[in-house]
Amino acid sequence: MNKKALAILMRARMRPNHLTNFALSPISNELNQILSNSHGNRSGENGEHHAMEHGKEKLNHQRFIIYESMHSVISMNKTEVGDSVLNEFLEGYCSLSFENRRKLLLTLAKEYDLNRAQVRELIKQYLGLQPPGSEAQSGGVADEGFLSTFYRIERNLRHSLKPVYETLFERLNTHPEGLKFLTSIRADILSILTEGNIASLRALDSYLKEKLTTWLSPAALELHQITWDDPASLLEKIVFYEAVHPISNLIDLKRRLGVGRRCFGYFHSAIPREPLIFIEVALLKNIAETIQEVLWDNPPIAESEATCALFYSISSTQPGLAGINLGKFLIKRVITLVKIDMPHISVFATLSPIPGFMQWLLSKLASQSKLAKAEDISRSPADRSGLTFYENILEPEEERALIDSSGDLASGKSGMEIMLNLLTPPTHEWTNSDKLLSALKPPLMRLCARYLLQEKKRGKALDSVANFHLQNGAMVQRINWMADQSEKGLNQSAGIMVNYVYRPENIEEYAQSYFSKGHIHSSYDVKRYIQVL
Amino acid sequence: MNKKALAILMRARMRPNHLTNFALSPISNELNQILSNSHGNRSGENGEHHAMEHGKEKLNHQRFIIYESMHSVISMNKTEVGDSVLNEFLEGYCSLSFENRRKLLLTLAKEYDLNRAQVRELIKQYLGLQPPGSEAQSGGVADEGFLSTFYRIERNLRHSLKPVYETLFERLNTHPEGLKFLTSIRADILSILTEGNIASLRALDSYLKEKLTTWLSPAALELHQITWDDPASLLEKIVFYEAVHPISNLIDLKRRLGVGRRCFGYFHSAIPREPLIFIEVALLKNIAETIQEVLWDNPPIAESEATCALFYSISSTQPGLAGINLGKFLIKRVITLVKIDMPHISVFATLSPIPGFMQWLLSKLASQSKLAKAEDISRSPADRSGLTFYENILEPEEERALIDSSGDLASGKSGMEIMLNLLTPPTHEWTNSDKLLSALKPPLMRLCARYLLQEKKRGKALDSVANFHLQNGAMVQRINWMADQSEKGLNQSAGIMVNYVYRPENIEEYAQSYFSKGHIHSSYDVKRYIQVL
Repeated sequence: MNKKALAILMRARMRPNHLTNFALSPISNELNQILSNSHGNRSGENGEHHAMEHGKEKLNHQRFIIYESMHSVISMNKTEVGDSVLNEFLEGYCSLSFENRRKLLLTLAKEYDLNRAQVRELIKQYLGLQPPGSEAQSGGVADEGFLSTFYRIERNLRHSLKPVYETLFERLNTHPEGLKFLTSIRADILSILTEGNIASLRALDSYLKEKLTTWLSPAALELHQITWDDPASLLEKIVFYEAVHPISNLIDLKRRLGVGRRCFGYFHSAIPREPLIFIEVALLKNIAETIQEVLWDNPPIAESEATCALFYSISSTQPGLAGINLGKFLIKRVITLVKIDMPHISVFATLSPIPGFMQWLLSKLASQSKLAKAEDISRSPADRSGLTFYENILEPEEERALIDSSGDLASGKSGMEIMLNLLTPPTHEWTNSDKLLSALKPPLMRLCARYLLQEKKRGKALDSVANFHLQNGAMVQRINWMADQSEKGLNQSAGIMVNYVYRPENIEEYAQSYFSKGHIHSSYDVKRYIQVL
Repeated sequence: MNKKALAILMRARMRPNHLTNFALSPISNELNQILSNSHGNRSGENGEHHAMEHGKEKLNHQRFIIYESMHSVISMNKTEVGDSVLNEFLEGYCSLSFENRRKLLLTLAKEYDLNRAQVRELIKQYLGLQPPGSEAQSGGVADEGFLSTFYRIERNLRHSLKPVYETLFERLNTHPEGLKFLTSIRADILSILTEGNIASLRALDSYLKEKLTTWLSPAALELHQITWDDPASLLEKIVFYEAVHPISNLIDLKRRLGVGRRCFGYFHSAIPREPLIFIEVALLKNIAETIQEVLWDNPPIAESEATCALFYSISSTQPGLAGINLGKFLIKRVITLVKIDMPHISVFATLSPIPGFMQWLLSKLASQSKLAKAEDISRSPADRSGLTFYENILEPEEERALIDSSGDLASGKSGMEIMLNLLTPPTHEWTNSDKLLSALKPPLMRLCARYLLQEKKRGKALDSVANFHLQNGAMVQRINWMADQSEKGLNQSAGIMVNYVYRPENIEEYAQSYFSKGHIHSSYDVKRYIQVL
């Protein structure tokens, strides 16, 4: 595919088929339809469906082959497993519909997990032996013999507790396309699990995730800069997977790879020409306050004048790698690289979305308004503070300003109700009124600081992006009003964005104190909003 | 290091120090000496060694830090482990003497293996639960809850059976130099184990080997051609590690990377500029019969005239990866690459040493000669066949020819004794006598064919190189007289070499029948020697 074709693709804004090699192929849908039926209606098979018997037989046979190849991959001895049987399974799996993949994965999870009779037998043997060091041992040759037996049985027990499907994963991983295929299998599993929990499949997923985590160890990943000179087949993936600030056209893409910009990706040798995760960097004079400055500054400043590397977008490309933190080492390595390349750059910051802010705020406003109504409608706002779960999250002067400015745009008995009505999507009419903007800014900025610094789940920041950067060793530097006025930005965080700053000399210390004590480092400016100075 | 320096290095024929980054550093030897003593003499510490107290304290402190950093890497929570503590351990380990490394590794093997109290507690919990499917289950929501508990406990048990030192391995593997470091740790372990078996360390080794095998999955390895344009730092490694046919000078090296030659290496992204294994290929008109043709054909033929790719040397570079078969996929991938690049090449063969032939033959000759003497010295050779373990491995006409031709060079009552005396190193005088050469050729060629095709250990070819190629799917094509007249070639196999042939269309089939039935495919020419046609 050349760059002209890429341009056409971008105009068409279609999901290119060949991007997802392992996605469902439309030609096999009919086949799958029948396969699925033939399985579902097994009880009626001897009835009126004679006319379809032949076609079904052929299709059943085809599915039989897929299960058969899966079984072969698992049960053959390792020297016997050739590429042909792996290919057969790989291609067979890809030809299945989602429903048939689901059935196959459930078979794998339930019928290829453990040989529990063997586990129990080995446990019996194991419990019959005295563990080393349990009695005074002389350390002689006889003991070494006993110890060898003990370690052997312990090892056998450990191996017997590995699910049988590990063999499938291990063997697929030796296939040239195997790692990519395994991540797409995991993407399927995650989709299935969103429909409802299935314990056996959940167990399989957690096992597969462990394996993928080892295989994708940072040691096996290579950091490369992505430039306009890279193949269009790679660049179209950047366009396709950019998750934070969509790339709107070819000029936009070229801009993000050109002067004053950098793009780095983590690659694995088994998944060539496709970054697993990539990060976009802008070289600036100061830490940007709005995403507009970053995406549409034209012309960019000379690179030699830059003092700040701003990470403005991090996107992962493989849904099947969800929950595997690849970004941690990425940011550290990019910082190292940029420092070597451009010693005049001393500030490493992000301009990040706050994806969970509005969700948290709206649910807080809704529940508090409801509480207030239900428990005591007649009390004055000041009296309500006595109620057990009630909390007026607005300051008195914020409440007053909201009531004064809302006018016709939003009704409500309290400041919180008004705020809830104003902020509830889909419209964002408040952004068109200067009066509302100035009434909303103080409570929104204050509550955003509170959300980022104080709202936690199991000791970690509630916001997923905040948690990501904090565990990587960043600090909260600044929150920016009207920093992302896109539909998405307004929906997620009322347009507010945040700068996290990475100080190379503090990265380890901050990551550790965040981890061990849940401590969130932040600047004076952000702390000031919530007066925890 | 530039190529001039490389040339100087090769003239000096020294082992370059920096090739083995993790090897013992001479400057730390004195320190180690004292460390080692201070540990060994702990009981006498309060005695006459007062003068050394201060120095010892300092050194003990230094060693304390190394053990402490090992402990930290293992016991810290994963988000807390930073590069600094990994570096501390890595550098600390490298500064230790072999003896102190031994002590540290034994501590690791014995004190960081399993928490066996926890294992027993989890076994108790596990045995208290009914495994899924053991009773009729309705598949309802309640069952899913029970199953989740069951899988969780099973998973906990599995995790508890993983040695604690796995954490050290996993974390080192995230360090940029970690994988290389782990292979050198394994090399140390293997050296320690050659001195005597230690069950706990053997168990640690087998665990580390499993981990390395997963990390070095073919999916994580990249195949690259190595050329004269590569950095000298890489080329010196080729010179240093070439294990089959030593590279004698810079012209020899250049020749092996030039016209009519190829060199391919398997690289891992975590071990840059150092192939884990490499293979040397000659492009020829016919399958070479002697190594002289390959190493000293001058000038080589035009590449366009070649029809045969001859693999004449495979060397692995990491002693710490012993027992991990990297070569299998290497050969398959090189064949694929060469076929794409040069479609006129249709024959893929090796010219291989037979490293175990003479060892097998000499011990066979020695034991049979002894048996003959001990059991019945007076019987005629024909009568001896009745003895239980006795086997005259020579044919009557071979025996006669040997007795006739040996003259003053070797004494002996039987053909076998004469043969034993002639072939026993260190001299190879028989190679200077045409009479002896022609008397020895028939039995040596016949017995070599027998050794390759019939002598087995646990169903596999006794010869390690034969086993390697046969399990990769090759066949035995031809054995070649006086094919390697170097000292090493004469010692290993009386100068005989063998051609294995890879037929791309048969590779899988041959590998499978070798594996499952121990079947060794061979040509008519080789079978003829032992008349198994």
